[in-house]
Amino acid sequence: MTLAQTLDELVTANRILAREGVVDSFGHVSIRHPDRPERYLLSRARAPECIEADDLLEFALDGTPIDPAGRTPYAERFIHGAVYHARPDVRAVVHHHSPSVIPFGVTGAPLSPVMHMCAGIGARVPTWDSRTRFGDTNLLVTNAAMAADLAAALGERPVILMRGHGCVVAGASLREVIFNSIYLQLNADLQMKAHPLGPVTFLSDGEVAAVLRTRGAFTYERAWEFWCRRAGRPYQARPMEGPHH
Amino acid sequence: MTLAQTLDELVTANRILAREGVVDSFGHVSIRHPDRPERYLLSRARAPECIEADDLLEFALDGTPIDPAGRTPYAERFIHGAVYHARPDVRAVVHHHSPSVIPFGVTGAPLSPVMHMCAGIGARVPTWDSRTRFGDTNLLVTNAAMAADLAAALGERPVILMRGHGCVVAGASLREVIFNSIYLQLNADLQMKAHPLGPVTFLSDGEVAAVLRTRGAFTYERAWEFWCRRAGRPYQARPMEGPHH
Amino acid sequence: MTLAQTLDELVTANRILAREGVVDSFGHVSIRHPDRPERYLLSRARAPECIEADDLLEFALDGTPIDPAGRTPYAERFIHGAVYHARPDVRAVVHHHSPSVIPFGVTGAPLSPVMHMCAGIGARVPTWDSRTRFGDTNLLVTNAAMAADLAAALGERPVILMRGHGCVVAGASLREVIFNSIYLQLNADLQMKAHPLGPVTFLSDGEVAAVLRTRGAFTYERAWEFWCRRAGRPYQARPMEGPHH
Amino acid sequence: MTLAQTLDELVTANRILAREGVVDSFGHVSIRHPDRPERYLLSRARAPECIEADDLLEFALDGTPIDPAGRTPYAERFIHGAVYHARPDVRAVVHHHSPSVIPFGVTGAPLSPVMHMCAGIGARVPTWDSRTRFGDTNLLVTNAAMAADLAAALGERPVILMRGHGCVVAGASLREVIFNSIYLQLNADLQMKAHPLGPVTFLSDGEVAAVLRTRGAFTYERAWEFWCRRAGRPYQARPMEGPHH
Repeated sequence: MTLAQTLDELVTANRILAREGVVDSFGHVSIRHPDRPERYLLSRARAPECIEADDLLEFALDGTPIDPAGRTPYAERFIHGAVYHARPDVRAVVHHHSPSVIPFGVTGAPLSPVMHMCAGIGARVPTWDSRTRFGDTNLLVTNAAMAADLAAALGERPVILMRGHGCVVAGASLREVIFNSIYLQLNADLQMKAHPLGPVTFLSDGEVAAVLRTRGAFTYERAWEFWCRRAGRPYQARPMEGPHH
Repeated sequence: MTLAQTLDELVTANRILAREGVVDSFGHVSIRHPDRPERYLLSRARAPECIEADDLLEFALDGTPIDPAGRTPYAERFIHGAVYHARPDVRAVVHHHSPSVIPFGVTGAPLSPVMHMCAGIGARVPTWDSRTRFGDTNLLVTNAAMAADLAAALGERPVILMRGHGCVVAGASLREVIFNSIYLQLNADLQMKAHPLGPVTFLSDGEVAAVLRTRGAFTYERAWEFWCRRAGRPYQARPMEGPHH
Repeated sequence: MTLAQTLDELVTANRILAREGVVDSFGHVSIRHPDRPERYLLSRARAPECIEADDLLEFALDGTPIDPAGRTPYAERFIHGAVYHARPDVRAVVHHHSPSVIPFGVTGAPLSPVMHMCAGIGARVPTWDSRTRFGDTNLLVTNAAMAADLAAALGERPVILMRGHGCVVAGASLREVIFNSIYLQLNADLQMKAHPLGPVTFLSDGEVAAVLRTRGAFTYERAWEFWCRRAGRPYQARPMEGPHH
Repeated sequence: MTLAQTLDELVTANRILAREGVVDSFGHVSIRHPDRPERYLLSRARAPECIEADDLLEFALDGTPIDPAGRTPYAERFIHGAVYHARPDVRAVVHHHSPSVIPFGVTGAPLSPVMHMCAGIGARVPTWDSRTRFGDTNLLVTNAAMAADLAAALGERPVILMRGHGCVVAGASLREVIFNSIYLQLNADLQMKAHPLGPVTFLSDGEVAAVLRTRGAFTYERAWEFWCRRAGRPYQARPMEGPHH
């Protein structure tokens, strides 16, 4: 895949997150540069629904834009660099404020998979609170210290919540982080619906492990085609393997 | 009706389930082959919203694709074959993950009709748990043993829930299973809305029986025309009888 | 206004109820014949979203279609005739199954105005249960006896719920019953949202009376123009008076 | 910016509020006249989704339309004049009935920011009850006395709820009041979702202050571009400064 195609898929990822209600005017998605692992690609500061290929910038892991040409970067781009620095396995990162996710961060209610499609969020999603180490702030992760603290709390996990703010989703591919962002939102919705009905049976750790062990690119691909259709974006097929349920 | 028309209606059924939010990228609907009752028709592994007539495959009841021509089948197709094998009366099957249905499967809250339109889900919807006999799995019904166990739990009923996964809806016609899939979703929504307000008066067994006794093809037909309109699909009228409320 | 224009507005009313989610494939709206008060106008049995002018039929108050010409009437048309017979003041009737209304009918939770726009539903909405006098039925009001019992329970009120089925909304004009059907749905939604937050302060009887005393055609007109726009239907202005908030 | 451009943005603001579900057929948004601070600009009485530039009128702070030319003003325009009179800092006012906001006004449940984006609603949103001083009314603020009482209760705050009616949002710019109206709705939704999950951690007063201290026009601008896109309205960029998260 050419870099132009890669950038086009990053635009599509932004549009998908907007179409699915995961992001509104805020939130962002990045990918590690396919050729320069010490760089990442992220839009200038703009609503995901409005992003075009020309809005995409290359950044050093410390958040320095390589060729801004007058384009203003996101103040919270540090989140992305810190995760790429701490996690060589990560090739895509989403930061979003899904309205389904916020309630868990502000109540401490446990967020865990209730459905096989949602196993990618991890057996138990932790919450990071900026106030713990940084006190009263505007909650924005706008410097390397806050971003490093957040990335350390994320550890090896796929998802972490941010109290009163949103969450971070990290993964091995753009399709994977978009998939887990949308199914994180769904899992949160499912838990909020199930909660009043009675005690919830979550997936067992063994079931979560079994889902992740058997999940292949095919699953992400089927969803990606569907979300491209809904977002009005062209779909580029990828070579696939793995189970197809 | 020609086989081409039958396949076109199966495409429409997929699009309706997607438009009504019953399925997302996953879930599938099949029909028993009109001429060969030991065969069923089901799409290749693809999101229902994206399915075209060329995606539809013929399968033996054991899940063997007759002429795949390189098209990848759903890993969970075994659900369909097992139900057709166990239930000669069944001519259409839906497997879906409606977000309204999942909360009942993971809490064990009783799911029963609260409204006449929803009587087709049966007086009480049971739940099947893959863990009971198969332990920690990825929850996918990807073999004959799991599918047969699920079909046995369904028994003569129209609907069964699958804990942490979704449900199966079986019926005598494609219009009937689409109707009951959508009104299953609605009934689940209605129960979740009603639950906090106080003890719910469900339809009595006598009322459920009276609705089913007097329900004719006309009811399914009126809804089918509406759902075709919403899904942007052409509507083919069917001969009709029965009450029209 | 010509009869053709009146029929066109009845088509629009059906489309508005569908667009606003008050009706799905079922539910119906009628008007008393402008020239023959012993007759009413109602569609043949069809989903409101699909109705065209040619679907509209004239009925005697006993439910006899005047000139069906092969068009099948709604089995529940008796509801309309019974209300027109019992209420000379009524010139329009809606029967619908809004998913927001059903939870109140099946729990007996009180349904009363929480907001000025919703005062038209009346200070307290009663519930009629077909089982009380007619035992286990399919819940459909398909004969004169059930319809008369329902109309008697409605009395002089604008709205009555039907347990496990839906509701009836009656009023002095088509715009009024559409307005009160949509704000009945909203009030039900508002009560379900407010209920978990704490004891609800409903409008006082004096406030309900004050709203109704000061509500004029202008209020219905402003909403009608908006709903026509949303439903993709042409808007025909009506002469107006009354307060404009 | 020319007055014509200013009026065009006021039309856009109306369409945005309708598109985002903050207003239905009712509710209104005004701006202080850019050249004559003792005047404000507000539409004639019409649903926000239907408003065109020709519907916009100029009013004296006492609610007198300057050149109505047969156009009927909103009966509740007095709300706007009273706030502009009491608050020289205010340059835009919204009155709306968001279905998410009503439940807080009728239960007295505390409404406070749970998320950084929502800090603009103020640390604690008060509720005004027309009945306290004016007894049983139709709840409409249709005279100077009620409007002045409401404006006094608002005080220096950005938002006040009106029991059984809606709310008022006041601010220094059109973009700011639209932003705070939409995030007020979101915050209310978030609190209703979080409430059943457990005690909610709201933003601290220090966090609310920090967000407001660091929020610049850039934040409103990014959202305005997104909402213009969603509402199908042309976007006019404004000069920007401040943090970009």
